[in-house]
Formats: sequence, C-alpha cells, structure tokens
Amino acid sequence: MIPERTIGRISLYRRALRDSLAEGSANIYSHELAARCGVTSAQVRRDLMHVGYNGSPNRGYMVRELLDSIDKLLDPQVAENVALVGVGNLGRAILAYFGSRGMKLRITAAFDKDPTKAGRVFHGCRCYGIEEAAAVIPSEGILSVMLTVPASEAQGVADLLVAAGVRGIVNFAPVRLRVPPEVCVENMDFTTSLERVAFFARGNAMKTEPLRL
Amino acid sequence: MIPERTIGRISLYRRALRDSLAEGSANIYSHELAARCGVTSAQVRRDLMHVGYNGSPNRGYMVRELLDSIDKLLDPQVAENVALVGVGNLGRAILAYFGSRGMKLRITAAFDKDPTKAGRVFHGCRCYGIEEAAAVIPSEGILSVMLTVPASEAQGVADLLVAAGVRGIVNFAPVRLRVPPEVCVENMDFTTSLERVAFFARGNAMKTEPLRL
Repeated sequence: MIPERTIGRISLYRRALRDSLAEGSANIYSHELAARCGVTSAQVRRDLMHVGYNGSPNRGYMVRELLDSIDKLLDPQVAENVALVGVGNLGRAILAYFGSRGMKLRITAAFDKDPTKAGRVFHGCRCYGIEEAAAVIPSEGILSVMLTVPASEAQGVADLLVAAGVRGIVNFAPVRLRVPPEVCVENMDFTTSLERVAFFARGNAMKTEPLRL
Repeated sequence: MIPERTIGRISLYRRALRDSLAEGSANIYSHELAARCGVTSAQVRRDLMHVGYNGSPNRGYMVRELLDSIDKLLDPQVAENVALVGVGNLGRAILAYFGSRGMKLRITAAFDKDPTKAGRVFHGCRCYGIEEAAAVIPSEGILSVMLTVPASEAQGVADLLVAAGVRGIVNFAPVRLRVPPEVCVENMDFTTSLERVAFFARGNAMKTEPLRL
C-alpha cells in the first residue's frame, strides 16, 4: 500500500510533467521536477520508485514514458463514474470544468435536494433528487463524489452518501466531516488557502516594497 | 519568520478549534487537536509555540483563548481588501461564499475581461474591467487575489496582477503559474484532489466490500 502523502506528491508530479510536456520537453531531471513541485530531488526519486519507472543518470526521465507509468498507477483501468452533490454555483462551475475534459474520471451523475433541479441536465450531466442517491450510486458504480452542498447540510448528505457506498469525498463545504475510517475525505478549503496566501503576501509586501502610506 | 508549512498547519488548527468551539468545548488537549488535523500531538505543541499561547498539562488549551491568539498571529490588524479575478461560475460561487461572511479578509473588487460585466455588482462586489487592475489594485491596497480565469489566460492575467502589486494568488486555474519569488501562489487543484480521493476510494472499496460483479 502506497502512503497517502506519496500518492499526493505523485499526483503533483503528473501535473508538472504534463506542463513540461506541453512546453515541449522530452526529458526532465529529478531536480527539475523537484523544483516545479517544491520538494527535494531525493524525495522525487524515492517517490518514483513506487511508479516502477527508472530514469537514466544522463538524460533524467523521459517525460512521456514517466507520465504513462504514473497514469497506469493512478488512473482506473476503465473510465470511472463520479458524482457531484449540490448543484449550486460552485457545483455548476465544477460540472462545466470536468464536462469539457476527456478524463478517466467522469462526473456522470449530479444530485440536489431541490426538486426543480431533479431531472434536468447541467453541462451534460443528469441531475437526480438526493433521495435517489441510495439507488443511483450503487447502480452507476460510483465510489467518489465532489460535495458542494452548504456547510449546514454537508454532514447529513455525507452520511447518506457513505451509506450508499461512497468511499471518497472531495469536500468543498467549510466543515470537517465525520466519516468511517474506510472513507477518504479531502477538504478543499478556500478560506484557509486565502488566509495563508494573504499572510505571506503581507510579509512579502513588507520585504519587497517601500510602505505605501 | 514562521515557515510556510507551519502557517498552513496553524491555519488548519484554527479551523478545527472553531469546529470544537461550535460543538461547545471550552478546552481541548493537544492530542485531540492533533487527531482532528491528522498530525502528531508533538507537532501541535511545537507549532503552537509560534502562537505564544501555552496550554496547561491538566486542562489542555482553552479553546477561545487559543483561537484569539491564532487570530492575532494570522489575521491582518485591520480588515484587508482582496480581489477576485474572473467572474465566471466559479468566481461567482466564491463571491457568494465570501460575501456572506464577516471576515477580516474581504473581497472588495472583482475583475473580468468581459466588458458587459464591468460596472456590474455580483453578490455585493463591484466588477471592474481587467484593464483597470493596474489602477484599482494599488488604490484599494489589494495584496491577495483569488484567480478564477480559464487556464489559457491565467499566466497573462497573473503577470498583470503581479505588476499591479499583487503578492499572493490563490490559483484555481489548472496550470502552474510562473511568478517572481516574492509572490506566494497556492493552487486549488480540483482534478488532483479528485484523482487522489478516487485512488483511495478504489483501494478502500476493495478492502471493505465484496466485489460487486
């Protein structure tokens, strides 16, 4: 079993490798990949041992081959269905974003508690009433969801989704979900990110600029 | 100077402490806070040395007092203006989200390249043409932005924002930004998060359920 943090970094490497390929690079050294991802090159080499692809000391890694190996590790063998729960502004933005991509992970069902949304199609994705989740999630083989409901509803909806068979939740609600240990939750926390960035922006502004009074 | 990762964790502790306060807890032990944030209790105690608030071995930390100390460290002394750039579905969702909160960080200006959006107000926030950023960003004292433009435009817009004085960017575009070293970027990467969650959901589904064939 590969540790969660390692998978997180390998997923970052993939993003950086795709950028690198788009920029026309055929090969990349571990120190270059490390610099793009903010880790050490020793870390990169250690993590990539899990991928089962070795670079050469002279030419580094072949970008295309390394990407293929990472895809094989991270991606489902066949296209996998994902659901989005909560079709508000944020949910629609995510549907539009994923709808336009040919990914192995496809959002094939949306859910909302608003009965006027059920039965409609948003950005190519069918919306169901949330009460249909118990039936639709197993029948579509859905294991992972993007959760974009209001904070006050997130825990109740998460409970219902887990009962329906969901094992992975990307949680956009600003609340910590209580889930059984077999369920993986990743929090997308806009506020915390903004706070962090703003903290450093203040410090860096002080370091690099004369005070604007 | 407190390291970036430490600030990230302290910001997570604050989130957990707010949850804890909302649940009615007056005090919390370092191991409880650690468990909520997925770190060790030794890490919590080490990080909180930067905050300048000490708990007691018998009662742990007083939640309210610890929160106040963290606020004092992380928050700006006075309310701080932030901008949002790119008023699409995602941008509007973020404006709605932040507009409803009384935070020290306030989104006081939005920018979009679409001339039909300039001059309008979205969720209480005035939208300017992107060409006005060079004037509005310094005059509003804006140091940090939420960047919600399409990937193809993100680098160009980031360049323009940095030139206008921006020092912190929460980047929602699925592209790695090249910025000078004095600019802090945090990537909100929906795809990578979903990939990671889906990877573990598959593994956990295999561990905890009979195969559905």
